[in-house]
Amino acid sequence: RPTYASQVWPAHEPHTHSSPPVRSPLPRAPRIKRARLLPHHAPARSATHETHPPERVVHSSISRLQITSSSVLPRKEAMAAAAAEVSNKRVVLKRHVTGFPTEDDMELVPATARLAVPPGSAAVVLKNLYLSCDPYMRSRMSRHDEPSYVPDFVQGEVLTALGVSKVVESGHQDYKPGDLVWGMTGCEEYTLITNLESHFKINHPELPLSYYTGVLGMPGFTAYAGFFEVAKPKKGDYVFVSAASGAVGQLVGQLAKITGCYVVGSAGSDEKVNLLKTKFGFDNAFNYKKEQDLTATLKRYFPEGIDIYFENVGGAMLDAVLLNMRLHGRVAVCGMISQYNLEQPEGVRNLFCIVAKRIRMEGFMVTEYYGNYRKFEEEMAGYLKEGKITYVEDVAEGIESYPTALIGLFYGRNTGKQLVAVARD
Amino acid sequence: RPTYASQVWPAHEPHTHSSPPVRSPLPRAPRIKRARLLPHHAPARSATHETHPPERVVHSSISRLQITSSSVLPRKEAMAAAAAEVSNKRVVLKRHVTGFPTEDDMELVPATARLAVPPGSAAVVLKNLYLSCDPYMRSRMSRHDEPSYVPDFVQGEVLTALGVSKVVESGHQDYKPGDLVWGMTGCEEYTLITNLESHFKINHPELPLSYYTGVLGMPGFTAYAGFFEVAKPKKGDYVFVSAASGAVGQLVGQLAKITGCYVVGSAGSDEKVNLLKTKFGFDNAFNYKKEQDLTATLKRYFPEGIDIYFENVGGAMLDAVLLNMRLHGRVAVCGMISQYNLEQPEGVRNLFCIVAKRIRMEGFMVTEYYGNYRKFEEEMAGYLKEGKITYVEDVAEGIESYPTALIGLFYGRNTGKQLVAVARD
Repeated sequence: RPTYASQVWPAHEPHTHSSPPVRSPLPRAPRIKRARLLPHHAPARSATHETHPPERVVHSSISRLQITSSSVLPRKEAMAAAAAEVSNKRVVLKRHVTGFPTEDDMELVPATARLAVPPGSAAVVLKNLYLSCDPYMRSRMSRHDEPSYVPDFVQGEVLTALGVSKVVESGHQDYKPGDLVWGMTGCEEYTLITNLESHFKINHPELPLSYYTGVLGMPGFTAYAGFFEVAKPKKGDYVFVSAASGAVGQLVGQLAKITGCYVVGSAGSDEKVNLLKTKFGFDNAFNYKKEQDLTATLKRYFPEGIDIYFENVGGAMLDAVLLNMRLHGRVAVCGMISQYNLEQPEGVRNLFCIVAKRIRMEGFMVTEYYGNYRKFEEEMAGYLKEGKITYVEDVAEGIESYPTALIGLFYGRNTGKQLVAVARD
Repeated sequence: RPTYASQVWPAHEPHTHSSPPVRSPLPRAPRIKRARLLPHHAPARSATHETHPPERVVHSSISRLQITSSSVLPRKEAMAAAAAEVSNKRVVLKRHVTGFPTEDDMELVPATARLAVPPGSAAVVLKNLYLSCDPYMRSRMSRHDEPSYVPDFVQGEVLTALGVSKVVESGHQDYKPGDLVWGMTGCEEYTLITNLESHFKINHPELPLSYYTGVLGMPGFTAYAGFFEVAKPKKGDYVFVSAASGAVGQLVGQLAKITGCYVVGSAGSDEKVNLLKTKFGFDNAFNYKKEQDLTATLKRYFPEGIDIYFENVGGAMLDAVLLNMRLHGRVAVCGMISQYNLEQPEGVRNLFCIVAKRIRMEGFMVTEYYGNYRKFEEEMAGYLKEGKITYVEDVAEGIESYPTALIGLFYGRNTGKQLVAVARD
């Protein structure tokens, strides 16, 4: 039987996949960037120049990336590979974090990369186009004595994140330069991956490629799997979504409407609340920062109670929801971002409601549903093309902006899915 | 759609039944009565003298008992019914309770009863033989502003409880004097019930009748339904049961062993721990009162983690269990007795484990499974006769002892299923 350590890390489970699950951000700070609605039809990009990362950095970024089974380039092979040197800036973890992370916990390191794959290897060199900023990454920024559900980042080494990448050099028979993929990569401009098992090829390049860090990628599939597979909605159900304007929440609400549910969302600014009501079609929404008594607030929005709570925040909101759940309610637990930066999590006191109302509260990770990803990709691509799903992303420009963009999640500075555009072709 | 009030009260749900669910006691106090192991083959008892309760008391005991749809005897009909008067002592709620209940919150009221059913009615007069003391009753002793999952007792009126009763007078075509039933009745010697829909006839009078307040009644079925229907065990699962020597816990552990699981129980005294290991066949057990660090304790007993936690206590134990659960663990939430007497429940801080380990935490009430009761009754009766299940009950003698016996649950004074023998025939 697996040990405790391997239990909490899905790498070796059936149907699991390298990408850790996204968590929707719970907005915190007043400063809000304006959301950008991308057009639905952006042209696919094609590859140009090629490089090869120096093995030290490849080592540091990839050797920790066991989830992609990537490995190290022996120094002499790397040196042997003759290729032009190009810039390869990367984001490195300067120190492990306790409490709220800051930009200073990370460092932008200038570096160079040479393009080539080791002779005879099945490795590929990826040019990273879009990098995702996701709340689950907060856990990786701390040092855990016992292995957490995702491996910790290593001090002094490059961060890893989900991203949309273009193959620029390949020793793998199934991949050729120009192929577009999404999966776990380095927070840098170029990354060498020796094993692409954990990546998905992109089947809809006619849609904005950045969507594969969100609505067509892991966050979108998290909303889809969590809502349909875990919460198991019925037409007419009363659905509540917290962090509702985030990467996952905005899609849960729209999937709930497509299913014929009544859906209310909470967010941390009036701008986001407005977005929920005007863009995402939530039946109602409220700014939790303006509410004194969340239990009374939820009773106001759900006089008949809540059938489904899509949980992204935890803490006081969960306590208030439990008191407002209906008989046989379901709580699909996606994340608890309000707790990620606390030294000690808040105590939840109303758990007896689970007995009194026969509530099912179930945690999930999207990685366990990746076997159905293609079905989801087709369905969601269809919704997007038909305009049945609206998607809002918050795009920061350039690898240099990655630390600020990531930190922003924990202050609710993003409106919609936060990502970083490293390159557009 | 049902309102919040009716949501938390199962009376009108499909497959529900009058009896509220049992909760296993979490032992608290050092004073322990010696457990009595009843022989497996006690003779069935038959009825003798008959009486009829005066309608005021019938009114007080039954009109609140909406769950059994019982109703009031109009005074003149009652007076019209000529019958011998007999003693009918009953236990009345003196005041609503906050914090730990005491004997003084109840009162033993001497009264008399006349035997007869209203002419032309389908009512029956029950002689109560065995009355059950169950932890869920604690909630009924308090006054709730919002309806709780079970209705509050009424100040100045007789308590109601599950019991084994004998029909001594019947206007109902399906019941004749001498029939044995179990279900919700008054905490008194005789009770008039105008609607027996919520009672079960006793199919195995060759077993001790008192067993129908426990192993063959609601607590036994709670263990059975909670373990098999909610926890869904697999052979080889690691199972932890809290309040493990209680009415429900002792059976969950034995059902787990029959299923091929590894099972450890916690209890509040060395005597109970010894009972778990020697009588109930738990693989191991510990006295939680002697443990400083429950998280470390559970790690010691479950080095590979816990697949199934049968939750009877809540609070600190639940927090420790969450840290020790395995991937895809299940928490069947039966009750949280450690919280019932607290002004404010303890906060549970480790709920993020539900995401990290994809835990399913699900509350249940046995009332929703009563459609399968007969299947359970036959299976459990078989186990008892084959000696595959050992059952320990803690029997107090006489209606006078009811208040003390009930209070004892919340101090862990009972060893095994607590009940009161009001009469033996």
